[in-house]
Amino acid sequence: MRRYNMARERNNKRSIENSGFGSNTSAEGRRLVNKDGTLNLRKTGAGILERISWYHVLLRLSRARFLVVVFCFYTVINLLFACIYLAIGPQCLKGSSEVSGLSARFQQAFFFSSQTLTTVGYGHISPDGLTANVVASLESFMGIMSFALVTGLFFARFSRPRAYLVFSHNVLVSPYKTGKALMLRVASQRNNHLTDAEAQVTTAFHVIENGQRVTKFYQLPLEIAQINSLALSWTLVHVLDEESPFYNMSEQALRDSRLELMVTVKAFDDHYSNTVQQRTSYTAEELIYGARFNPAFRRSEDGGTTLLELDKINDYERVAV
Amino acid sequence: MRRYNMARERNNKRSIENSGFGSNTSAEGRRLVNKDGTLNLRKTGAGILERISWYHVLLRLSRARFLVVVFCFYTVINLLFACIYLAIGPQCLKGSSEVSGLSARFQQAFFFSSQTLTTVGYGHISPDGLTANVVASLESFMGIMSFALVTGLFFARFSRPRAYLVFSHNVLVSPYKTGKALMLRVASQRNNHLTDAEAQVTTAFHVIENGQRVTKFYQLPLEIAQINSLALSWTLVHVLDEESPFYNMSEQALRDSRLELMVTVKAFDDHYSNTVQQRTSYTAEELIYGARFNPAFRRSEDGGTTLLELDKINDYERVAV
Amino acid sequence: MRRYNMARERNNKRSIENSGFGSNTSAEGRRLVNKDGTLNLRKTGAGILERISWYHVLLRLSRARFLVVVFCFYTVINLLFACIYLAIGPQCLKGSSEVSGLSARFQQAFFFSSQTLTTVGYGHISPDGLTANVVASLESFMGIMSFALVTGLFFARFSRPRAYLVFSHNVLVSPYKTGKALMLRVASQRNNHLTDAEAQVTTAFHVIENGQRVTKFYQLPLEIAQINSLALSWTLVHVLDEESPFYNMSEQALRDSRLELMVTVKAFDDHYSNTVQQRTSYTAEELIYGARFNPAFRRSEDGGTTLLELDKINDYERVAV
Amino acid sequence: MRRYNMARERNNKRSIENSGFGSNTSAEGRRLVNKDGTLNLRKTGAGILERISWYHVLLRLSRARFLVVVFCFYTVINLLFACIYLAIGPQCLKGSSEVSGLSARFQQAFFFSSQTLTTVGYGHISPDGLTANVVASLESFMGIMSFALVTGLFFARFSRPRAYLVFSHNVLVSPYKTGKALMLRVASQRNNHLTDAEAQVTTAFHVIENGQRVTKFYQLPLEIAQINSLALSWTLVHVLDEESPFYNMSEQALRDSRLELMVTVKAFDDHYSNTVQQRTSYTAEELIYGARFNPAFRRSEDGGTTLLELDKINDYERVAV
Repeated sequence: MRRYNMARERNNKRSIENSGFGSNTSAEGRRLVNKDGTLNLRKTGAGILERISWYHVLLRLSRARFLVVVFCFYTVINLLFACIYLAIGPQCLKGSSEVSGLSARFQQAFFFSSQTLTTVGYGHISPDGLTANVVASLESFMGIMSFALVTGLFFARFSRPRAYLVFSHNVLVSPYKTGKALMLRVASQRNNHLTDAEAQVTTAFHVIENGQRVTKFYQLPLEIAQINSLALSWTLVHVLDEESPFYNMSEQALRDSRLELMVTVKAFDDHYSNTVQQRTSYTAEELIYGARFNPAFRRSEDGGTTLLELDKINDYERVAV
Repeated sequence: MRRYNMARERNNKRSIENSGFGSNTSAEGRRLVNKDGTLNLRKTGAGILERISWYHVLLRLSRARFLVVVFCFYTVINLLFACIYLAIGPQCLKGSSEVSGLSARFQQAFFFSSQTLTTVGYGHISPDGLTANVVASLESFMGIMSFALVTGLFFARFSRPRAYLVFSHNVLVSPYKTGKALMLRVASQRNNHLTDAEAQVTTAFHVIENGQRVTKFYQLPLEIAQINSLALSWTLVHVLDEESPFYNMSEQALRDSRLELMVTVKAFDDHYSNTVQQRTSYTAEELIYGARFNPAFRRSEDGGTTLLELDKINDYERVAV
Repeated sequence: MRRYNMARERNNKRSIENSGFGSNTSAEGRRLVNKDGTLNLRKTGAGILERISWYHVLLRLSRARFLVVVFCFYTVINLLFACIYLAIGPQCLKGSSEVSGLSARFQQAFFFSSQTLTTVGYGHISPDGLTANVVASLESFMGIMSFALVTGLFFARFSRPRAYLVFSHNVLVSPYKTGKALMLRVASQRNNHLTDAEAQVTTAFHVIENGQRVTKFYQLPLEIAQINSLALSWTLVHVLDEESPFYNMSEQALRDSRLELMVTVKAFDDHYSNTVQQRTSYTAEELIYGARFNPAFRRSEDGGTTLLELDKINDYERVAV
Repeated sequence: MRRYNMARERNNKRSIENSGFGSNTSAEGRRLVNKDGTLNLRKTGAGILERISWYHVLLRLSRARFLVVVFCFYTVINLLFACIYLAIGPQCLKGSSEVSGLSARFQQAFFFSSQTLTTVGYGHISPDGLTANVVASLESFMGIMSFALVTGLFFARFSRPRAYLVFSHNVLVSPYKTGKALMLRVASQRNNHLTDAEAQVTTAFHVIENGQRVTKFYQLPLEIAQINSLALSWTLVHVLDEESPFYNMSEQALRDSRLELMVTVKAFDDHYSNTVQQRTSYTAEELIYGARFNPAFRRSEDGGTTLLELDKINDYERVAV
């Protein structure tokens, strides 16, 4: 919180160098930060194993993809062990009924493997002989270890602290007091309760300096940068006064600057007992010049409850500025 | 901590706009925050899947309801798989004893399913044939994955960082020094030790502005807003002096304003090694005008220990103010 | 950090009211905080279920006691279910060998129960009939749920963020610069690396005010209250100058005041990626007047490594002050 | 953040005493902090059980070593229980086929043990008699408890919050504005996104005071000590002006001082929703006097994305200073 206030005092109309992006970043017309908050960035010069945090990958996958990945993993391991049991020989698995034929034996091996991996172990098929027993013993060990990862990940995904914010699709230039202000809106989309929410808006835009096109970064002062409870919708307001880097810029100038607004909202969620954070970004294409947001909450019919209308987060009407 | 001090300096008798509630919130005589700290708010305009965080729902359920939900889930999955095994045909499950009749076969299928789902796998019933084996293999896989969620949730509920605070049921207007003060009391109810506790009290009340009834929000300065250790009971004291939004308001005026106090206490619990937080709210109905709290702790009989009497947290006596 | 500096400026020689203890706390000659950092406090006036956080209890138990509790729980559940299986009747469990006699049947039931609870499910004993199957199905469900708690707790205990600090047993009054200072020493005892360590020392002592014996609390300013890395031993130094509540108090006066020092050290452990905290307290009995600590670290024989000698944390020698 | 600013104001050219290291630390030509961020420190004077946090040990082990340790643990437990079953007698395990001979019986006992420990429990071998059943019941209980630790650890290792930073191998003395500056570079190596990154550089170096060689510690002010997003590479710049402890020191003087730079970078990772931290250190051997870093990021061929070249983090060219 304090930081933002300090920033407001210090950084008025002076570009900041601590955005974490460089002034020669090649963001010509494309985003530094994607709409979903990820970085528009690629890393090279290191092997994939050194460059990838599998934990991050598996947490970011969509739910469907995650289940597909896990199911493929389960199937592949079973196929692998089925082949091993086949390779050991026809007598290594003893079943209640004799099977013959490669296909039947492979099926038996495959299902024995899955029963071992999941530690179900019905026992109607059981390992016989030293080799098969050793392999089965290893497989059940491996099964427990891999299911530790898989089920741990499954739960980690489910319980991962997330802000569940919804941002307005557009950023508006609205009339504000006697002047104008940039406005965007955010709300908590779900049944979580966020407290001590803080917002930070950084802008990148292009200017011509000494004939060179360079990217400048500014932290935009907000009318209210911290609220006690993110109960209803929250409109972030950056006044376009003489302290703003956009002061006196016309609509055309704003669009030509190819500005990008990078927004971060942090808050405390007491069910996770943790700080959650969400980012998004806006480019000139998402800027509406001359509009204001309509209210997104209203009194319920019986007058006793407040209704927050999530489908109206981006609801605006055109006005002159 | 610091924040509250700043607030004290800045916000004296000026309403705040960062409460997270709007000034036209329709809280006519009802609460913004319920007694248990949840918001009196409904969200609309988004499908239930986008609006619900199941993790939050399952963490907030009462223990009994959670167990019922989990048990129903377990039963439904078993019923579903029992039907699948029945559909595959009478030969798909091989038991030590032959069963006939739909009811007996359904029972066998149901219990086989539960043995598979929990990975007990006695084996006196075992899958036979390709289809049954595939289904059983999927079921045990699904069983492990769902039990990862269920047992993870069960433990997450049990170990969830919670403040375990008990608040006085009433908020009092008590004599304080040469004037009056709003007082409410809080204590740690359980065998946890909270340190660096911070309290924040925000009030909402109705005033008539330009003939319109609007809701104003104020952060109430507290005599002590942070304590090193929440060992005993802690009385939050808001002095009703000229810096208070309630300065010189009579009992009737206070009640007419339909005030609501929203209280948040945050602290560090070193067994969770985490910040915990609890909220509550008070409305005019819970205001006692002219009373003071009786002490809630005393010396033990042997003189060596302090006793904190939790049933006296709301113990007050009437006094003139 | 900042907080302590503020405190230093503000609280010089003024008692604090935000210690969390009351000025009439009945700590006559006994501790407010025990040597191991727990509170010398008992809570009454609420049922045990409302007063106990089982999670805290089970995390604080010694390792041996925890294992005993868990083992008893396992045995009791098995005994319970063994009785249920016995009650259902002699035919409810089908084994590879027939057993008769109550003792043999009870054994069979008990072991079947344990095989079900742990989901081993060998299958040489299996449930027969509807009732037994339903009970076994419930037991395996219950087994998974309870083992989720038990193994979760076991791991939570093992991985619980802890500071692993060792404090000097005594607090010394040592010569310091041209005057005297209270000194106590702390070190990280284990192979964890703590950074950004902060210390806070609060004192409680008795004074006679208006003929009444009351307890006063002071936060003691420290020469260094925060260090970047708790690599070696750290001596906390409170100078007994005119800013100290103990200024000009003789040894006898200090002892008569029945002072208690409550010490809290917080730090960041990057293996837990969490803040850890440990407390202790010192009473007048642990005060050594006129002594100074000997160094607790030295150069290794080969000159290349620093040795921290944990057994010398309380190593002091008598000196005149 | 604030802390560093305060330090900048206060500590200019004054050594700090809160580095956590002592001024007589025996770091003669060797490091206080190793290149990988661990301390060059040994603890003595306490038994290994009091000195070791097994959790930290098992988290720090390399992946290969961890798997070896776990596998050995699994094998040893199985061997142990195999011996117990052997000791109970030949009839204690009943298999589908009779086995004789010590080796065959040991194998049977070993595999039965592994099936019990992992709770697979095929049941083709099953315990017979009171003693064997009791032991098997204990083993399955122990199995669940130990696998709770092992799989918990396995997942904790996998999901442990880590910064995944890569530091430049060298620290440079580069031309900067009209003077010189110490520069080192850091980047996030993997697909994690770090925000609110803070850096802290502490130096230790040797000076002659009163004819004695002592180690002095200074916190080095940085041009930018905090950035909003650690998206690209970040060059930490310490200007060698009159506020620097290295002001006007020649290359030879710097090398003779046997300086060591200890660098800590902290940031917030929103996938872990946690603060992550990484340390490293530089000694005089890693100092390049007269060089500057080449850019480590550039525009992608299609112009739309930024490429961060991790292999160029330490890429520098010689320049005169």
